[in-house]
Amino acid sequence: MGIEIERKFLVDHLPSSLTNQAGAIIRQGYVIIAEGGVELRIRQKGARFYQTIKAGEGLSRKEIEIELSEDQFHLLWPHTDGRWVSKTRYTLPVENHTAEVDRFDGDLTGLLLVEVEFASLEEASQFVPPGWFGTDVTEDHRYKNRHLAVHGIPGDKTP
Amino acid sequence: MGIEIERKFLVDHLPSSLTNQAGAIIRQGYVIIAEGGVELRIRQKGARFYQTIKAGEGLSRKEIEIELSEDQFHLLWPHTDGRWVSKTRYTLPVENHTAEVDRFDGDLTGLLLVEVEFASLEEASQFVPPGWFGTDVTEDHRYKNRHLAVHGIPGDKTP
Repeated sequence: MGIEIERKFLVDHLPSSLTNQAGAIIRQGYVIIAEGGVELRIRQKGARFYQTIKAGEGLSRKEIEIELSEDQFHLLWPHTDGRWVSKTRYTLPVENHTAEVDRFDGDLTGLLLVEVEFASLEEASQFVPPGWFGTDVTEDHRYKNRHLAVHGIPGDKTP
Repeated sequence: MGIEIERKFLVDHLPSSLTNQAGAIIRQGYVIIAEGGVELRIRQKGARFYQTIKAGEGLSRKEIEIELSEDQFHLLWPHTDGRWVSKTRYTLPVENHTAEVDRFDGDLTGLLLVEVEFASLEEASQFVPPGWFGTDVTEDHRYKNRHLAVHGIPGDKTP
């Protein structure tokens, strides 16, 4: 909950430390995708269920998350109308931060993204990505999960 | 859940049969108000709690409702940011339909609205309102609860 400051990158190559992890299986769908970065996302992570409301875009955006019961999740899921992604999430330390690597499944197989969350905008701008990170796509809307859920893996063309 | 077909009217005068009813106390707030009639509303009706997602406008709009726990409701309520209405709802038969009369409280004290739900668009258009109904405001966005929650009782000027 609150303001999230994070940067998102493509993954150039996976670090060897990742291969030991099982990862958490996540599926998430979008009940609402609206103007101004407004979205209502539901997510299953293992045996737990969540609803996240987002508003705003860029480095900072507002997030409101509550945990759902399994029943509530299954009532809402049909209303995602196929706008969903499935992925495995791996967590690992990068300097004094935590990086989350998402390996996508289904129509998005082959796509790998890594996100790092920061305590301040200053910290975010000073972050030096390690060698296994690829292009910074923080501001590239095509790599938002809501966009991936609808449009698939972005092509090679400039947006 | 599903498509709702309803008409909304101002109330010219309350029918005498209403004075015997206690009515249900409702408070509802808006976590999301976005373009295209998109909204996320949470509602307390007596001791029960609901979340309703709406999209679309006019006679027909999509609604998805789930029941919330009291805890979930109280986690979301602060995020309505003061966009809320409080009202007492009375239910009574009108011909073979059910009418819901809302008597608003707080900043909206004095406002009375009545809604009737129909099984089809044809039924909605054939409905002849009884004498105690006032102006048809079905298509007047100023009388949507989400608009009332932000802007208060509409003035006398044309929108």
